[in-house]
Amino acid sequence: MRNFDQNSITQAVLERVAGASDPRVRQISEALVRHLHDFIREVRPTQAEWEKGIAFLTDTGHMCSDTRQEFILLSDTLGVSMLVDAINHDHQTAVTESTVLGPFYVEGPPEVACGTDISGDLAGEPMYVSGTVATADGTPLANAIVDVWHSDEDGYYDVQHTGEEAGLVARARLRSDDQGRFHFWSIRPAAYPIPHDGPVGKMLEAQGRHPWRPAHVHFMIAAPGHEKLVTHVFVAGDRYLDSDAVFGVKDSLIRDFTAHPAGTAPDGRAMDRPYCALTYDFRLNPVSEAASQAA
Amino acid sequence: MRNFDQNSITQAVLERVAGASDPRVRQISEALVRHLHDFIREVRPTQAEWEKGIAFLTDTGHMCSDTRQEFILLSDTLGVSMLVDAINHDHQTAVTESTVLGPFYVEGPPEVACGTDISGDLAGEPMYVSGTVATADGTPLANAIVDVWHSDEDGYYDVQHTGEEAGLVARARLRSDDQGRFHFWSIRPAAYPIPHDGPVGKMLEAQGRHPWRPAHVHFMIAAPGHEKLVTHVFVAGDRYLDSDAVFGVKDSLIRDFTAHPAGTAPDGRAMDRPYCALTYDFRLNPVSEAASQAA
Ligand SMILES: [Cu+2]
Ligand SMILES: [Fe+3]
Ligand SMILES: [Fe+3]
Repeated sequence: MRNFDQNSITQAVLERVAGASDPRVRQISEALVRHLHDFIREVRPTQAEWEKGIAFLTDTGHMCSDTRQEFILLSDTLGVSMLVDAINHDHQTAVTESTVLGPFYVEGPPEVACGTDISGDLAGEPMYVSGTVATADGTPLANAIVDVWHSDEDGYYDVQHTGEEAGLVARARLRSDDQGRFHFWSIRPAAYPIPHDGPVGKMLEAQGRHPWRPAHVHFMIAAPGHEKLVTHVFVAGDRYLDSDAVFGVKDSLIRDFTAHPAGTAPDGRAMDRPYCALTYDFRLNPVSEAASQAA
Repeated sequence: MRNFDQNSITQAVLERVAGASDPRVRQISEALVRHLHDFIREVRPTQAEWEKGIAFLTDTGHMCSDTRQEFILLSDTLGVSMLVDAINHDHQTAVTESTVLGPFYVEGPPEVACGTDISGDLAGEPMYVSGTVATADGTPLANAIVDVWHSDEDGYYDVQHTGEEAGLVARARLRSDDQGRFHFWSIRPAAYPIPHDGPVGKMLEAQGRHPWRPAHVHFMIAAPGHEKLVTHVFVAGDRYLDSDAVFGVKDSLIRDFTAHPAGTAPDGRAMDRPYCALTYDFRLNPVSEAASQAA
């Protein structure tokens, strides 16, 4: 096989990847080659544009570190993350909707008891968060693992700080009690621009887009016999709800973060200043027999 | 804009990138989103497969260094590099065909006089290379810049060596004389596997493909008023001519590397052992008025 032109090359590459022993690898490789070649034939990049593309991908890779995932940002901002999410959560109506994981999740966050204030020494408006975890029909799920993480009042996540400020904060793992309940204290998160000092930020600028996400608290909830839920709860009224840079907003995930005056909080804590409260009742999707056998 | 499903998300992203001020950025962004989303909808990746994709791209980026370009290898092995090449060299019949740049070109190679032996202290069968540079109608081009680079007898490029062995070798810049001629000495290159100890190597293995390229000498030739030519000359008879890992072979670029016994070489050099000789007459594409004004 040689002497390929701009049409025959695609068939040649398809024949080459057809030797994959894993049928899924073959399927993904073939689809990738077809769509990638169609994309190239449609835009007809110059050699200089191809070089720019290679440089963009290389820069994006070099931007990735333990605490920065530029390719997830790229996937998020191109709507790929939410598309994958939609594909995998089709036809789920009785359970909590999912949204993007985002680049700031940290595996195995510090486990804390219900009621803990996870805000460390961060300044900000106190926030009381309570909720329940249940299965699709509302039956409470005890001992579910509830990972939470959110930004500070300036819109930064703990992992975006380095040096002296470094350390995990506004991030924790809780467990639901025997009635499926959990609660904790933190500070109110702020809307924030996704990290835009790298290649993805340059892309957004070239595309005439802002990098902002509406304020939210991330939740990742796992319970035996159920699909892991990855979602956020968004702050009602945020100015970016309709232009989220990563297309993650769903109406069912928006809640009022209600204002409360100083006084005794629902968990008995004496508050000497006003605070806000968020409550959300999560419902998890039971894993079908078939799916749990496949997993 | 919110509450996207797996179809409406594409339109949402397209609307977002439509704000690009540069129409070319808009065109490329829109085409990328459409083909990327179609690819995702076709293969329906699980969340775990999406994570593998992110990890693959990240690893590919981390593999890139000053002397290793893993994204070019990815582009090459997916046939994208040759597709871009074909698109940009369509309908060129009277001039030398082009092929991939490959990942081993070094900007500004050491300039040497015609006749120099550029093989340094590399072992191998001596190779005498001569050729001419002319425009499409055969008129010689004097003072053309002729960059050459090739592998050693083990199939490695100089830049793949680090530490004590490091240094540029089997690589040089020559200039054509007033009759468009150039010549130099080196050693015969070998077929070689593209670097396959990284993510692209894993991909090839999963796709059931070998990483080999048939033996070749790279040429990049530049002359005023002409398109820069990026090409190789392949060794006739090589076992990988029909299965080049990067789809770069064209019949017009294959030459016999003819065997010669010890004796006086064409340039007068006294050879005490056998050597091979390659000759190729390159023809460059004149840049049209329109194109040179656009450039
Ligand atoms: Cu496509
Ligand atoms: Fe977030
Ligand atoms: Fe090469």
